[in-house]
Amino acid sequence: MQISSEIKANYYMNFETVNLKLQVRPNDLDSLGHVNNAIVLEYLEAGRWSWLERHNLARGKRIIPVVARIEINYSREILPGEVNIITKLMDVEENYHYQVIFHQFVETCQDGIVKVAADARVKVAFIDSVERTLRTLQDFLDENTQQHG
Amino acid sequence: MQISSEIKANYYMNFETVNLKLQVRPNDLDSLGHVNNAIVLEYLEAGRWSWLERHNLARGKRIIPVVARIEINYSREILPGEVNIITKLMDVEENYHYQVIFHQFVETCQDGIVKVAADARVKVAFIDSVERTLRTLQDFLDENTQQHG
Amino acid sequence: MQISSEIKANYYMNFETVNLKLQVRPNDLDSLGHVNNAIVLEYLEAGRWSWLERHNLARGKRIIPVVARIEINYSREILPGEVNIITKLMDVEENYHYQVIFHQFVETCQDGIVKVAADARVKVAFIDSVERTLRTLQDFLDENTQQHG
Amino acid sequence: MQISSEIKANYYMNFETVNLKLQVRPNDLDSLGHVNNAIVLEYLEAGRWSWLERHNLARGKRIIPVVARIEINYSREILPGEVNIITKLMDVEENYHYQVIFHQFVETCQDGIVKVAADARVKVAFIDSVERTLRTLQDFLDENTQQHG
Repeated sequence: MQISSEIKANYYMNFETVNLKLQVRPNDLDSLGHVNNAIVLEYLEAGRWSWLERHNLARGKRIIPVVARIEINYSREILPGEVNIITKLMDVEENYHYQVIFHQFVETCQDGIVKVAADARVKVAFIDSVERTLRTLQDFLDENTQQHG
Repeated sequence: MQISSEIKANYYMNFETVNLKLQVRPNDLDSLGHVNNAIVLEYLEAGRWSWLERHNLARGKRIIPVVARIEINYSREILPGEVNIITKLMDVEENYHYQVIFHQFVETCQDGIVKVAADARVKVAFIDSVERTLRTLQDFLDENTQQHG
Repeated sequence: MQISSEIKANYYMNFETVNLKLQVRPNDLDSLGHVNNAIVLEYLEAGRWSWLERHNLARGKRIIPVVARIEINYSREILPGEVNIITKLMDVEENYHYQVIFHQFVETCQDGIVKVAADARVKVAFIDSVERTLRTLQDFLDENTQQHG
Repeated sequence: MQISSEIKANYYMNFETVNLKLQVRPNDLDSLGHVNNAIVLEYLEAGRWSWLERHNLARGKRIIPVVARIEINYSREILPGEVNIITKLMDVEENYHYQVIFHQFVETCQDGIVKVAADARVKVAFIDSVERTLRTLQDFLDENTQQHG
């Protein structure tokens, strides 16, 4: 199915910020009783899957999103309870090219006060799993739109 | 604070079955796209923590509950989505002694149909973390009741 | 390629006990500083992969080994350091049928003394990933032998 | 025990680059069969523990090293096998202050060729676990030296 570039642009502009609530699990804690720094990356990945799902984008067809770089600040300890993962796409203009950057936050709520415990920038590239070459966000979107079209 | 054995028995008889809903996370999946068998034990542990919390029991004071044995049947694959962990205490009579057995289930819901994906019996002993000796469930309950009393 | 049942039987009888050394990782520890009970199942899975590899058996072709049941006893705490995972196939006679049982041990070494920290019986079934039916160990071996033959 | 600043400086200058070999475990793999990006942070943490151990530094006394920020590039997929984690301290001069930066690499070896699969800069701060204030690297070293002195 062919889609005009005008419609594609509209589609793209409408990406939403997505919130995901997760329960901290006992195994997420390190020997100090705080969520371990590696586990926070698991939370972020859950957030990005939730973002893909909200936008009807598949994780694993021929073109696969792959994490290329992460910058993450850990500003507060995360204790047992519930966390909120916020995921949004950054840098709209450049994102039509070979990589996108997600801005993600992990929020905790202690005594009714919401605080950011970690914030990250996650650079994602798109790999053609057959040819093993880089593809663009637009290629990734097209592949998904065609399936649902 | 002294508690009569009558009250203790009542307290004990009222243990509830506790349900916990958890999101499956991307890192829980193995290379087949199903939740890995080891991760299911993490779900069960989250269920037992939830059970302790519901009954106002601490996880880590001087007397610590420790897993001594697990028997688990994996009857269905668990896919991305939400799982429900059901935790109840078995074998009331014998449980006043040196170990208790939890009966736990992991349920999934696909297309509105709830199915048991795994069921387990988890034997828990109580260790005195200072003397490193075995203690009874009653000792564990007493320690917790005294704190709140 | 056809293999006579005599050769198949010989092949089968020669399964070895396989040892795998693993480093305990910081994230394996719970808030008490011991290896968590769910992580021990990860160690066992690493042991079974090592066992398959030693016998030139693939993990994921059409017929896939799937864990159906685990019984595990946790007899000692596992601390940071190295563990040894021992994996052997049990119950030779019955194992030609629809499931096999692995007997596995996790050993630690403290001050030069080797101790069993956990022992498990892991029941594995063989699933045809296309037809989603049960297959036998012999089917699984045949598929692998044909590839290498 | 008092240590002159001259000796402290020598001690500090002698920090070594530390290598740690780890086995990739089945549970480290995502649904594509590659080591997941969050797991790579577990490898790095194992590398830093190994670095501390080599220098006779404790992980958890009163002053605790805490990860404040990570920048990581994922340049190649990591497959089942063995990885090598290289850990070294960066930025010697500034490191006497309130945080240090570790430079870490994850190397894989395929067909005899060593390749860097990930490289990271990990910023670590030192927290006084009683007063919950920031401390310096020197405070952390002093606490450890006093114990062994």
